[in-house]
Amino acid sequence: VERLQSTPSQATALTTSLCDTAGPRLSGSSGDARAVAWAVETMQRLGLAHVHTEPVTVPRWVRGEEEAHVVAPLYQPLAVAALGSSPSTPDGGIEADLVEVTSLEQLEALAPHSLAGKILFANLPMARTNDGASYAATVPVRRLASVQAALAQAEGVVIRSVGTDHNRLAHTGAQGDHPVPAAAVSVPDAELLHRLLGRGPVRLALRLVTREEPPVQSANVVGEVLGREHPEEIVLLGAHLDSWDLGTGAVDDGAGVGLVLDVARALKELARPPRRTVRIVLYANEENGLAGARAYAEAHGAELAHHVVALEADSGSDRAVGVRVLGGPGAREALRERQRWFQALDVEVREDDAHGGADTGVLRTAGVPQLDLRQDVSRYFDLHHTANDTVDKIDAAQHAQAAHALATLVWFAAEEAVDFGRLMPEQQDTPRREGQAGGPR
Amino acid sequence: VERLQSTPSQATALTTSLCDTAGPRLSGSSGDARAVAWAVETMQRLGLAHVHTEPVTVPRWVRGEEEAHVVAPLYQPLAVAALGSSPSTPDGGIEADLVEVTSLEQLEALAPHSLAGKILFANLPMARTNDGASYAATVPVRRLASVQAALAQAEGVVIRSVGTDHNRLAHTGAQGDHPVPAAAVSVPDAELLHRLLGRGPVRLALRLVTREEPPVQSANVVGEVLGREHPEEIVLLGAHLDSWDLGTGAVDDGAGVGLVLDVARALKELARPPRRTVRIVLYANEENGLAGARAYAEAHGAELAHHVVALEADSGSDRAVGVRVLGGPGAREALRERQRWFQALDVEVREDDAHGGADTGVLRTAGVPQLDLRQDVSRYFDLHHTANDTVDKIDAAQHAQAAHALATLVWFAAEEAVDFGRLMPEQQDTPRREGQAGGPR
Repeated sequence: VERLQSTPSQATALTTSLCDTAGPRLSGSSGDARAVAWAVETMQRLGLAHVHTEPVTVPRWVRGEEEAHVVAPLYQPLAVAALGSSPSTPDGGIEADLVEVTSLEQLEALAPHSLAGKILFANLPMARTNDGASYAATVPVRRLASVQAALAQAEGVVIRSVGTDHNRLAHTGAQGDHPVPAAAVSVPDAELLHRLLGRGPVRLALRLVTREEPPVQSANVVGEVLGREHPEEIVLLGAHLDSWDLGTGAVDDGAGVGLVLDVARALKELARPPRRTVRIVLYANEENGLAGARAYAEAHGAELAHHVVALEADSGSDRAVGVRVLGGPGAREALRERQRWFQALDVEVREDDAHGGADTGVLRTAGVPQLDLRQDVSRYFDLHHTANDTVDKIDAAQHAQAAHALATLVWFAAEEAVDFGRLMPEQQDTPRREGQAGGPR
Repeated sequence: VERLQSTPSQATALTTSLCDTAGPRLSGSSGDARAVAWAVETMQRLGLAHVHTEPVTVPRWVRGEEEAHVVAPLYQPLAVAALGSSPSTPDGGIEADLVEVTSLEQLEALAPHSLAGKILFANLPMARTNDGASYAATVPVRRLASVQAALAQAEGVVIRSVGTDHNRLAHTGAQGDHPVPAAAVSVPDAELLHRLLGRGPVRLALRLVTREEPPVQSANVVGEVLGREHPEEIVLLGAHLDSWDLGTGAVDDGAGVGLVLDVARALKELARPPRRTVRIVLYANEENGLAGARAYAEAHGAELAHHVVALEADSGSDRAVGVRVLGGPGAREALRERQRWFQALDVEVREDDAHGGADTGVLRTAGVPQLDLRQDVSRYFDLHHTANDTVDKIDAAQHAQAAHALATLVWFAAEEAVDFGRLMPEQQDTPRREGQAGGPR
């Protein structure tokens, strides 16, 4: 463990290599294909075993043109981004008065047909917290606004970006599959609209040109560090290879890809591998479908009983602050016994349950225990799903510490003879409203 | 002075009112016209005397579409903004390999015809400093790159944004009037291009659609706080009303407009006005032409001998750190004698010469002494000339402190019987390479 904690980390170099080679990599894009090729090549270079791709059929939604501006009381262009899977506006765009709501409760209370001829403006601010709790509290707006806009027969819907920054850059994200054109405006623009609405009616023009192409084939990329005693017992270590299209997916989730590949690298450099197999999975289509997670569970259904525990690294590049487990009664006690390992990195062994990531949720339903690497996410939602999600935002020192913490956690799972048990039925539902359980989407 | 230093400042409220009413206000745009109307109305509301507009013929350059992406070695869209007065690319855009230069010296050394069929990439980083010295050292690239691209017959030119942030937002700005399509890319994009160029050739696609319309009429807006003893002696207090088009010109120069109008408000609220007249001028067209400054000097040529001293507030909204003067031998001594007034605000009376602002440069040539309010500009070049220049960036407490410092300085000039003298010929050239002399462009 001392060795794993002192190896010079390659996490940021690996993330940079991915982002500079593939660029943005929304499911089904050319960047997605470049990322798959990069991952295969990189795993082979690191000397992983059984490096291969597993086919995943993914949606192919394409952002085209997007433009919004205030028409009255003044001309004011807005920083806007279509939400994932939003349809286009009619040719020439739409123009209508805004109706503002400022809470989930107000959204839920919208009456059918009540917004005919209007554009719904959902303006819910998100607070900055270290643990992502405010994201979980706010992000439901992204789907609910579209659902309620459809119900209320609005012409369109714009939401305040679900994010903590004050840049003129909108945060995109999945919003389900709804018939109303839906976009996010930047936080400064949402604040401006709110001020203008305080003075009188605000008329907005919105034009989105998007397209939904037929599904295409992408892939999960898999490789292993084979266990020296129990190669059939699998510690599953994941991250997602796809990203939103606006940035280069550096912190979401290039950073996680860098972390898990850096752990694999560190394990390969040891004189002998751990007792259990560490399997790296880089998932396709986490951002807008989870098709990669489902494909993995289907392809490996027979083998899931041998999945000892699963973890997804999807909380950015900042420092690890805690680890936690969800499993049988002995698992937490075993982790607590290794507290000293984590204290060396200023990482807390937490007593609350792990949540697992978005892609490991499917495995959770199959009873697979979960591990979480908790990271400081106080900066994460400044960048998340924006054009600003680029490699210059990564603090390599924090990223290295997170890699060392993750390597320690993986070593704990793969080397120690820990009985993680299986999840009881009541442990199998992914809890809502916590978010950032290693994998917010 | 105690009263001027304790009046609740309206600076941020005034700035917000301007930006929310006018929006972006590049010379000749509808926002420019709204700003002029707002300024007249606001000066009247504040009870200024002789509120009027003075006609200024301004250029009308219009940003249209702009798009850039790396074609090879990967597809990567870039955050790009045409530089002011850039021509359009040919229909369909241009596509060519990049040639990188990283210093002004390398730019100057480019040989005629040496970049035929290429796109010039001028990649000069700017450091963060409190005084703007690094801006002065870097900003010559904006003009020089276009000059040298034309000389070297490049297809186009992209510069690294002259700015200190790491947002995916490009910084626009004036670049003169040159035949080569010219744009800035964001700092993260410039860093990416640099990394890619380290691995091999980089092919770039650039498409700019801009247009130069016939000049239109805008206006300087003028109002006065009449002096109680020497109404004919003018202390000229300026800011510029126009802004670049990407943001709403909140810090450049809505903040300065807010400062000078707040000083006028505070003076009007005193029981009696200062001895000399304080004339407020809100200039047109500072950003791309200085036509407002020239028009003012022409219209008031006969009166310039009565301009006791001039100041332009054009350094953003952050706190004042110093004041300084350029004038006859007695002026600095007089300011030093009032040191105590400024110490109360933690503002230093500096011994070096004032530089004046961009718009007061013309008056400097006519011998008019100058005052500078130096502000902390360490954040200013994160926002300057970008879409991020919006009112949410203003720290109202710092802005209020700057307003109090400015009111103190104006009181010093208008109330005390200071003989500022006239500028000697050797004091009349605006020094280069300091920038941020109260008014970087």
